[in-house]
Amino acid sequence: MSNNLLAGKKGIIFGALDEKSIAWKTALKCHEQGAQIVLTNAPVALRMGEINKLAEAINAPVIGADVTNMDDLKKLFEEAQAHFGGKIDFVLHSIGMSLNVRKGKHYTEMNYEWNQKTLDISAMSLHRVLRTAWDMDALNDWGSVVALSYIAAQRVFPDYNEMADAKALLESVARSFGYHYGVKRKVRVNTISQSPTRTTAGSGVKGFDSFVDYAEKMSPLGNASAEDCANYCVTLFSDMTRFVTMQNLFHDGGFSFTGVSQAIVEGMGGE
Amino acid sequence: MSNNLLAGKKGIIFGALDEKSIAWKTALKCHEQGAQIVLTNAPVALRMGEINKLAEAINAPVIGADVTNMDDLKKLFEEAQAHFGGKIDFVLHSIGMSLNVRKGKHYTEMNYEWNQKTLDISAMSLHRVLRTAWDMDALNDWGSVVALSYIAAQRVFPDYNEMADAKALLESVARSFGYHYGVKRKVRVNTISQSPTRTTAGSGVKGFDSFVDYAEKMSPLGNASAEDCANYCVTLFSDMTRFVTMQNLFHDGGFSFTGVSQAIVEGMGGE
Amino acid sequence: MSNNLLAGKKGIIFGALDEKSIAWKTALKCHEQGAQIVLTNAPVALRMGEINKLAEAINAPVIGADVTNMDDLKKLFEEAQAHFGGKIDFVLHSIGMSLNVRKGKHYTEMNYEWNQKTLDISAMSLHRVLRTAWDMDALNDWGSVVALSYIAAQRVFPDYNEMADAKALLESVARSFGYHYGVKRKVRVNTISQSPTRTTAGSGVKGFDSFVDYAEKMSPLGNASAEDCANYCVTLFSDMTRFVTMQNLFHDGGFSFTGVSQAIVEGMGGE
Amino acid sequence: MSNNLLAGKKGIIFGALDEKSIAWKTALKCHEQGAQIVLTNAPVALRMGEINKLAEAINAPVIGADVTNMDDLKKLFEEAQAHFGGKIDFVLHSIGMSLNVRKGKHYTEMNYEWNQKTLDISAMSLHRVLRTAWDMDALNDWGSVVALSYIAAQRVFPDYNEMADAKALLESVARSFGYHYGVKRKVRVNTISQSPTRTTAGSGVKGFDSFVDYAEKMSPLGNASAEDCANYCVTLFSDMTRFVTMQNLFHDGGFSFTGVSQAIVEGMGGE
Repeated sequence: MSNNLLAGKKGIIFGALDEKSIAWKTALKCHEQGAQIVLTNAPVALRMGEINKLAEAINAPVIGADVTNMDDLKKLFEEAQAHFGGKIDFVLHSIGMSLNVRKGKHYTEMNYEWNQKTLDISAMSLHRVLRTAWDMDALNDWGSVVALSYIAAQRVFPDYNEMADAKALLESVARSFGYHYGVKRKVRVNTISQSPTRTTAGSGVKGFDSFVDYAEKMSPLGNASAEDCANYCVTLFSDMTRFVTMQNLFHDGGFSFTGVSQAIVEGMGGE
Repeated sequence: MSNNLLAGKKGIIFGALDEKSIAWKTALKCHEQGAQIVLTNAPVALRMGEINKLAEAINAPVIGADVTNMDDLKKLFEEAQAHFGGKIDFVLHSIGMSLNVRKGKHYTEMNYEWNQKTLDISAMSLHRVLRTAWDMDALNDWGSVVALSYIAAQRVFPDYNEMADAKALLESVARSFGYHYGVKRKVRVNTISQSPTRTTAGSGVKGFDSFVDYAEKMSPLGNASAEDCANYCVTLFSDMTRFVTMQNLFHDGGFSFTGVSQAIVEGMGGE
Repeated sequence: MSNNLLAGKKGIIFGALDEKSIAWKTALKCHEQGAQIVLTNAPVALRMGEINKLAEAINAPVIGADVTNMDDLKKLFEEAQAHFGGKIDFVLHSIGMSLNVRKGKHYTEMNYEWNQKTLDISAMSLHRVLRTAWDMDALNDWGSVVALSYIAAQRVFPDYNEMADAKALLESVARSFGYHYGVKRKVRVNTISQSPTRTTAGSGVKGFDSFVDYAEKMSPLGNASAEDCANYCVTLFSDMTRFVTMQNLFHDGGFSFTGVSQAIVEGMGGE
Repeated sequence: MSNNLLAGKKGIIFGALDEKSIAWKTALKCHEQGAQIVLTNAPVALRMGEINKLAEAINAPVIGADVTNMDDLKKLFEEAQAHFGGKIDFVLHSIGMSLNVRKGKHYTEMNYEWNQKTLDISAMSLHRVLRTAWDMDALNDWGSVVALSYIAAQRVFPDYNEMADAKALLESVARSFGYHYGVKRKVRVNTISQSPTRTTAGSGVKGFDSFVDYAEKMSPLGNASAEDCANYCVTLFSDMTRFVTMQNLFHDGGFSFTGVSQAIVEGMGGE
């Protein structure tokens, strides 16, 4: 059901890999709410071809861009503005990649070159995106940028590995750039700290399934789904949340403020 | 403009004193978004008579209730359900009162009996409201309760006095009860930590005006208005934010994560 | 072994019930480190008689005081200063009591009169103590006040019940009064958020033992003992931590920043 | 005055540039408290020659090491252990460098290659140091590692530029590695978030002096000095704080929890 919350708005969505992706669901919801969309992902991800189904469904162009390449990003924003015939209102940054996780390197044994790539792709890419928009003055006043994060930025989840550090860096970039873009153009920048979500990307993390179960039991409302996250993104892109900026917003069914749940205590044989 | 975000929903709004009130604006916005409303306030506030203008505008009954009186609260929820012909979907708790502030008692000289009243009216009242609903099973599944707070719960603003402690207590009650109500009924409970707002209640705080100016300069987007806060409440009452619970959500133009702004540094003669 | 860290210092210690108490251990450690001590507790606790063993061991007077009674507190500070022949350098506030917990009332069913007592005894008592000292100018410059708290002030531990709210209030009072006393007299006020500790008071909480086990498994270093906490208090009373104030300091073996531990995941049958 | 708090302990101190340095003062205090020290710094810093004065005063060898070079770090830990005739008890990481700050690049215009160096030198270096020790099993059980941070990791101070992101990353590394080292060897890892301090390194930041004044006025106790920070480090290296780990500890005279001070409000012409 549409509420036309994003009527007339134009957005770029990074990171829709397949239909499990939060970015995929967000693109659908934004379209449903009246927005026009440009989809983008890394060339290697585009080659998988899934995104074309989405592109067709929401009538959106797909523009490839390597988020660590400033020329690609410039081209993306140029083409997006050409397509829209104007500036951009919102951006979803749903990007994360860890070679150390993929290759099973323990946090204490990380390969530092891979780590540098992880930080660049997963965190500094937000700076690169914002800076590209900034240099081209490509965002409308009161534009809204959301990046997806995870609570490992605040507390240790051992298997999350170097991605914890990357998310901490990402959240800091959101605050830092959010300050400057807020002052300059009233643009707001926030991160959503989402429940662990069974996406194709998430599955790469060791012990992910048992962790999803743990989080489910620990969260008073259970884990938030990708679809719920998409809804939450819509509210943050809308004009109804204009004064929310530089925040890390937990969207996790209460996990973040639950020290222990009755379900976990009982599972341990307690009481 | 309505997006019908709250179509079919029913809510109780506490604390609409006059048209400057956040609760007043929220009632208007909720109505505009398709909700039915019951208004309530303390008997002494009702006697001022302003609320009837609002009641008429949104076609809402006004039911007086002293939030420290369990019988009053029970009656309120009974009458509200009778009026709606069903359970309640959302509640706004916009209630705060400090006798020590009003009478100019410094924090270090507080009257402890007045303090006990401040805590009861401004914080434990949220427990009383939730507990009344809980006992009567008066909230629908996925219901949403929002209470208004202030950043003095985290950091000291000397003139905010004992209200800082009251807000810290309020936020804790929101988390504690939010856990239980989440597990039982998927009801979510959050607080919004709002910019200082020139309401009739806010004006009672010593040095309030100069403080509003300070916050304005410190916030990248400037202070959030009462109307913007009302919009934000609507998103939290809607089904688009279902997995947000037990959170304290800053709605403050970025104030909370700004250490110092360029505007403040310049005002001090720096650089 | 003594390092004479508190040589020449004079302190008041609230809450030494028996030899399991954190306050008891802290009194011993402070004495060992060269401090002179005055012990105090509620008259009802004194009647148990245990404290006299401690008083003898460290050559400290015992002065009864109900922390909700300003006259008692005034008498305590007067007699302590008379005993010391001068002002006071440090205070340990290790006080907490919840009638609702004791009588097995669930959080959602609390008795509000008991709750008011819980807040008064467990939280506002810190204000009363500080205010008594403030009015009498009884603390030396750079004096140090520590109150014991618990992480339930930040996150929900269902069985901790209303004490969570009391601790949130306590921490807020520490910040608020800490600001004023810092400006006036360089006195610093902090809370220590301690691991769950098997004290006589702690044992009253339902499900406490299984919870202690959970925390032990969740903390990279294991739970902090009462004796370790006493050591930590000594550092905070010493001149080596002079610029630490208005903080809530986790002393918990890393529990607070561990999202989940390997030990917990394995215990759940994961991986 | 010595309390022999570190009697028999052996530590490596990174980053003593000149006598204004926090690391310099910490080395002096640790020595005074009975510790043996190995000093280290980047080869380029050693060439300035100041460190030899310190080395002589505390009878410590100086071993050059580039913290981004694993071979250098390995050699450092080997030589330090050879010098001490055993394992190491504590490490101070006082390292930070930003080419973008030095060259006056605004945050929104950063050079990404320089940024990569900033992150490597200022943050990932902590991982490299810990990992070197981990691989060689070079730290004693209950060893203590402290890295210096700054509140810009949590809130935006515009002139602090990319160092804010670096400090957020540093604090995350401290938590992440702190978890693993805690489980393995009871080693604890913390960061101290220190007041702005007039060191030679600090002076590089634009607008630094006026910012120090601002922080002084905002902090109830005033800014913490380098010498006070050294004292605080000593307590964290001692056995009296054994269960403190994975924390970011504000040592800032109360700045971090002060929303606004009376001194700042008055300076703005308020009230």
